[in-house]
Amino acid sequence: MKLSKLFTKTSKNISSQIESVNAQLLTRAGYIYQEMAGVYAFLPLGMKVIKNIEQIVRDEMDKIGEELLMPALSGRERWHATKRHDAIDILMSTRAANEKALEKSTAEYILNPTHEEIITPIAKHFRTSYKDFPFAVYQIQTKFRNEARAKSGLLRGREFIMKDLYSFHTSEDDLNKFYELAKERYDAIFDRLGIGQDTYITFASGGDFTDDYSHEYQTVLESGEDVIYLDRKNKVAYNKEVATPEDAKKLGVNFDELEQVMASEVGNIFPLSTKFSEHLDYKYSDEDNIQKNVWMGSYGIGISRLMGVITEKFADDKGLVWPESIAPYMYHIVALPDEENIKVANKVYETLGEDKCLYDDRDSASTGERFADADLIGCPVQIVVSKKTLENNCVEVISRSDKFESFMHPIDEIESLETKLA
Amino acid sequence: MKLSKLFTKTSKNISSQIESVNAQLLTRAGYIYQEMAGVYAFLPLGMKVIKNIEQIVRDEMDKIGEELLMPALSGRERWHATKRHDAIDILMSTRAANEKALEKSTAEYILNPTHEEIITPIAKHFRTSYKDFPFAVYQIQTKFRNEARAKSGLLRGREFIMKDLYSFHTSEDDLNKFYELAKERYDAIFDRLGIGQDTYITFASGGDFTDDYSHEYQTVLESGEDVIYLDRKNKVAYNKEVATPEDAKKLGVNFDELEQVMASEVGNIFPLSTKFSEHLDYKYSDEDNIQKNVWMGSYGIGISRLMGVITEKFADDKGLVWPESIAPYMYHIVALPDEENIKVANKVYETLGEDKCLYDDRDSASTGERFADADLIGCPVQIVVSKKTLENNCVEVISRSDKFESFMHPIDEIESLETKLA
Repeated sequence: MKLSKLFTKTSKNISSQIESVNAQLLTRAGYIYQEMAGVYAFLPLGMKVIKNIEQIVRDEMDKIGEELLMPALSGRERWHATKRHDAIDILMSTRAANEKALEKSTAEYILNPTHEEIITPIAKHFRTSYKDFPFAVYQIQTKFRNEARAKSGLLRGREFIMKDLYSFHTSEDDLNKFYELAKERYDAIFDRLGIGQDTYITFASGGDFTDDYSHEYQTVLESGEDVIYLDRKNKVAYNKEVATPEDAKKLGVNFDELEQVMASEVGNIFPLSTKFSEHLDYKYSDEDNIQKNVWMGSYGIGISRLMGVITEKFADDKGLVWPESIAPYMYHIVALPDEENIKVANKVYETLGEDKCLYDDRDSASTGERFADADLIGCPVQIVVSKKTLENNCVEVISRSDKFESFMHPIDEIESLETKLA
Repeated sequence: MKLSKLFTKTSKNISSQIESVNAQLLTRAGYIYQEMAGVYAFLPLGMKVIKNIEQIVRDEMDKIGEELLMPALSGRERWHATKRHDAIDILMSTRAANEKALEKSTAEYILNPTHEEIITPIAKHFRTSYKDFPFAVYQIQTKFRNEARAKSGLLRGREFIMKDLYSFHTSEDDLNKFYELAKERYDAIFDRLGIGQDTYITFASGGDFTDDYSHEYQTVLESGEDVIYLDRKNKVAYNKEVATPEDAKKLGVNFDELEQVMASEVGNIFPLSTKFSEHLDYKYSDEDNIQKNVWMGSYGIGISRLMGVITEKFADDKGLVWPESIAPYMYHIVALPDEENIKVANKVYETLGEDKCLYDDRDSASTGERFADADLIGCPVQIVVSKKTLENNCVEVISRSDKFESFMHPIDEIESLETKLA
């Protein structure tokens, strides 16, 4: 993509209403646009990051479940059935927005913040014999929460993109077995996203979902909104809700030895037990044709939230720093204004391909602006073409990490750059 | 995908509340699940069709615009600014769904049924010089409409997936030029979806969008909900809103010569003129630094609606018939119960690949059920393995059209089947 054609431009100054570091940086670099606090448009660069995260998540989830897509709207009755209608304090409903619409229809719907109430009747429709179990389905879909204060950018959205998987079992044992499989896939996802090393499975309370412990995946992050208690040796953590003497005893942990750090949640898994199948009357018939409650699990990953966490995790004072696996483009080509430089830069762009390169082909930008924008936008590899590099028949290849390591690479061997960097 | 593993099963009987032919068939075959009238889940088979339609649309739209993703929620103020807040009779807003939520936040938002009000301020943020024009952006996103009666299945949703592209120009001429480019891409999309021959660009009134004519794309369909007046020779049509003596005169058409047919809308394009840029104060500065109104166009395609129209267009009394380009799987393998048949069917499945085949490996289904399900699910090519076909060292290859043409194909040459069918 040529920068002269890109829909967005970088900004020096942004609205003072954008408070979080992630939203500030992503806004300045042209990845997102704030419609209101907690509600964002993903602009072309941001859309690419979202799609890349989605594809990694989809790839791993396809190994344990089938993809489907559930609606954002649902009827109120099933939320009453699970007793969550009046319990969830961020639940939104719809109504006709004006007089004309009200005359036409007075119908009101729930805007789903999660989908246990929706998937359970669907699963019940298709699978009721023990032979049909276990199974799991997932979706990547937009959720809604009526957050009073949404000041954390992509970390706490009124509208956000989430992957939610649901698993169904004939016994607690089988649920536990699948739960371990899901953990493996979650580890793989966070590894591929470049945050595996700093992401910990974290014991937490079950909230509205379960009376058991649930598990969060927390990424260590100075600016994170959660406190967790880290057991680095065993690569697990405990969130502050369960960091009590009582829970400590249950979990067999000496809390005095744990390390207290700030972190940000990137996923969660809940053993739902039979809570939802009981409320929504989902039973299976066993080998003796006896009706039994279905065991369920729920497994979430916030896609747009991950984009925010990864932004804050890797950004430096110059701007964004994307892991290669989700960067909008691998290369950012900067040619210092000069006919010969531009000729070589064009060749580099053609060789590496427009899908992999953001190419600063602007007429007007100063050298300083070009480098500042490349740093701000944060593609993993910067390729600089200047008189100096051409004297050696080379381009300069700079890693966009906080160290900005670089080397010279021959112009005639651009094709081999990808292999060299791999 | 093995049928024994597929999340869904086909159903003989479905709820009497499902009224439309498309929703009935898609429900019976396990493609969709009705949450309520006009609100559907897309189950794994349905999700594949949706993704295939999306990919064709995306592929063509990428040639004329950049993809982004706007939110479903917006603030009320900009809908007041364009005077559409009180005019759109299907406009929905949100509110806290219960007492607890209301105590936490009383905020209300619009649930966007279209995105002119959202994209215009974003475009204004990034592009205000004549040098920045023209440009176009699009999204594939979920829209909401508070339909009083939603009895047409995927054809009229309270929640539906849509592609909407917006173009921005410095003059009416430039808008018209782009409008023609968009038409070409629309033609390409409908061709690739297999409905090109029966899809007509249709003159219509502009509705809430414009005082000019707008254009619909209408697919001729006996069960369609619209009447259009067809000029087959010139491959254009007129919808009944503009089929008046007054409009006839304006358009230079002799309405007596037109053919009246039923049709279903699959897309629309609107020259928005400067309506939205005026209301939302979007101006550009020209070469003399004079501020002028931006010209806009809006270009929609209903993704989920298309799935419904294509269902009704091609279905026969046995079930669904998918065009190859959007079928969930190309092949449906049916092995009649017998050890040798199953061995060969396994080999066919492995050779053609699990991504391309739905393989009926069920233990329990009868021969009749197997064929009935293959016909109902509607993959383009059925591959039958039976004693009779094996006697000739062949499988039978059947086309799932209303003619069910077939031929025998050697087992040893399964690899070449794809080439043979192409």
